[in-house]
Amino acid sequence: MTEPYDAVDVIRAQRDRTGVDPDALRWMVDAYTREYVTDAQMAAFAMAVLLNGMDRDEVRVLTDAMIASGERMSFAGLGKRTVDKHSTGGVGDKITLPLAPLVAAFGVAVPQLSGRGLGHTGGTLDKLESIPGWRAALSNDEMLAQLRGIGAVICAAGSGLAPADKRLYALRDVTGTVEAVPLIASSIMSKKIAEGTESLVLDVKVGSGAFMHDLEKARELARTMVALGADSGVATTALITDMDTPLGLAIGNANEVRESVEVLAGGGPADVVELTATLAREMLALAGQPDADVETALRDGRAMDVWRAMIRAQDGDPDAPLPTPRETHTVTAATAGIVTRIDAWDFGVAAWRLGAGRARPRDPVVHAAGIDLHVKPGDAVTAGQPVFTLAADDASRIPRALAALEGGWAIGDTAAASRGIVIERITA
Amino acid sequence: MTEPYDAVDVIRAQRDRTGVDPDALRWMVDAYTREYVTDAQMAAFAMAVLLNGMDRDEVRVLTDAMIASGERMSFAGLGKRTVDKHSTGGVGDKITLPLAPLVAAFGVAVPQLSGRGLGHTGGTLDKLESIPGWRAALSNDEMLAQLRGIGAVICAAGSGLAPADKRLYALRDVTGTVEAVPLIASSIMSKKIAEGTESLVLDVKVGSGAFMHDLEKARELARTMVALGADSGVATTALITDMDTPLGLAIGNANEVRESVEVLAGGGPADVVELTATLAREMLALAGQPDADVETALRDGRAMDVWRAMIRAQDGDPDAPLPTPRETHTVTAATAGIVTRIDAWDFGVAAWRLGAGRARPRDPVVHAAGIDLHVKPGDAVTAGQPVFTLAADDASRIPRALAALEGGWAIGDTAAASRGIVIERITA
Repeated sequence: MTEPYDAVDVIRAQRDRTGVDPDALRWMVDAYTREYVTDAQMAAFAMAVLLNGMDRDEVRVLTDAMIASGERMSFAGLGKRTVDKHSTGGVGDKITLPLAPLVAAFGVAVPQLSGRGLGHTGGTLDKLESIPGWRAALSNDEMLAQLRGIGAVICAAGSGLAPADKRLYALRDVTGTVEAVPLIASSIMSKKIAEGTESLVLDVKVGSGAFMHDLEKARELARTMVALGADSGVATTALITDMDTPLGLAIGNANEVRESVEVLAGGGPADVVELTATLAREMLALAGQPDADVETALRDGRAMDVWRAMIRAQDGDPDAPLPTPRETHTVTAATAGIVTRIDAWDFGVAAWRLGAGRARPRDPVVHAAGIDLHVKPGDAVTAGQPVFTLAADDASRIPRALAALEGGWAIGDTAAASRGIVIERITA
Repeated sequence: MTEPYDAVDVIRAQRDRTGVDPDALRWMVDAYTREYVTDAQMAAFAMAVLLNGMDRDEVRVLTDAMIASGERMSFAGLGKRTVDKHSTGGVGDKITLPLAPLVAAFGVAVPQLSGRGLGHTGGTLDKLESIPGWRAALSNDEMLAQLRGIGAVICAAGSGLAPADKRLYALRDVTGTVEAVPLIASSIMSKKIAEGTESLVLDVKVGSGAFMHDLEKARELARTMVALGADSGVATTALITDMDTPLGLAIGNANEVRESVEVLAGGGPADVVELTATLAREMLALAGQPDADVETALRDGRAMDVWRAMIRAQDGDPDAPLPTPRETHTVTAATAGIVTRIDAWDFGVAAWRLGAGRARPRDPVVHAAGIDLHVKPGDAVTAGQPVFTLAADDASRIPRALAALEGGWAIGDTAAASRGIVIERITA
């Protein structure tokens, strides 16, 4: 077969900002999926995208091409409004767990097609797999039935959605092209649009423990994704939220499930409750319920009922004891004072070293491993008071985690002003 | 074996211009040669070099690493001064053929390790292979003996010089990263420095038929290479010369040999004579003979004697008839006037389509194919006067060559002012 375009011409157009022909860009993604365009060609293209950027139309064409590389799902026959949420990833970010049942408690379908963690941020499926019996893999029919009946489903995204993105994502990881905003945006949005949700709320993290370290980049990413959603008929709102410090007190897997259940029981750390409620209000607004009283649904057990049904529907036992660690190590305050800093990146790396995360895609995670914070920035401590507890299945992991935490937390005289959890809201 | 660096860190440093660690850059080139660093990683790095540039020290480290990937030759035991010349490539550029014997006629050793052509610019070895019996491949001993005796040698560069560059060059060709000045400079200079020449004259072409289309880029390339030479102890001078129009009247292989012999016989087109003499003076100045009378050496047969000895030493017959084409087609002037334009790029592509060049590295070339110009820009023509003649072995190639020439030449009322052949001279 004669190819209608030449990869070098597409790379050059992106390199020189002379404007990439939309049909040539679509061909490039398709030919990459077919392995006619090589990894080396796509890597050069990705670097040119990272350094030169793309305009709104180009990102849309790229995203459409990613979607076209695989199957498209539809929730049109469900008879319910659908709304999805995506987080760009953070430390202690278990928000999907209480959020999906909370929103579903209002009669809205919440399809959370999720991934596993890689690196210092955990994966939603890894956390849920702490629950004995729970399974991530559902057939499309099972997923639709669960959305129709219970309303909330958190399950593994099938490999059929945007396969070109899967290949490109792995390539970016080894070629220094992860941080390209147009590529991050099209990677996230191609999967969400292909999934078929009606509306979407994005939680774009900014801070030491996030992909995006500075607010300007986070804003650019949020705006790009909101525009992509609008251009594809998916009503999309983005919140930019803080990831300088871990969310809540639990960092790991089983302990994050425990904390999520506390929130569903009407308790839990204030920051997790605030972010869960704020995201739920945004999702319900997109689903036509702008005045939904989400706090009451957390307090009166309606969200918890959906959670229990959702876990049971995927063969999990919501009442079974969660795994506990073999080894723990508690760090205490040397002096009295105010906790001035608990760094998300350092605590994320430490939890990862304890076994809560994985280094390679097929490694197992240790469900009981992780960190429990006993205090948050701004809290007062006395000398000798526990600050955090490390948990692992293997004592040899503790010193390596402690090394990661050196300089990662501090006790001082006065608390720095916090910028709050929700920093900015971006709409189309 | 544990690798001391990570390719992603090197790519990121080049991408963000935070300064590439010299040892890490050396490792990158070495690991690429060992195929530990992948083509995709090197392609992303090359694109970052193209878009961000490199400073003088970085280009030097890169070039040193290319040299270190292979063997180094030495002409120290020769008992003669050595001087080499390199052209960045142009249409009708046969200058090496008369130049090497001319300079050698002054007792200087001229080692011209050359390549074959790819694309619209011809290769010196392809041209010489028009001569019956002539062989390009010499052993190191044969080359040294010829340099000692005759003084001039034009032969194939061994694959042992800068093998990392060879791999990178092929990669750049398919990833849109050919035009990166630091990579062009290190590619050329690594081979010349590894070859072991004492001094070097660079002919940096600028114009429609050259790699570099604008003067500023050509200047940047020339300055980068002159600096690299100086930093490596190779005295280097660069001339920036015109390539808007083909050099001389012959474009092809056998016809370029014929034209070169005319120059060695004291005749030939004025531009070829001028450039040959100018480059010879630069080379001889670097070899300690600033006042050499090169015009006389062309007229009195001394240069021709070296040419004949040089061809014979490589089993060629300087008196054998050169191949002639099966098919020719002459284009005449429709109206009287002045030739205002003969475009180097268009005539280069036409000659290539006639069979004078190759599309893939292992294709053969047709030695008798090419174009003979009958006039040059600035010449007056009458209606019906021949302007140029196409030559091929296969008549079906003629229409495709004519198509390439549409708009590639013009006859008007007045000749445009020419900028001359030698545009600028750049020294350390």
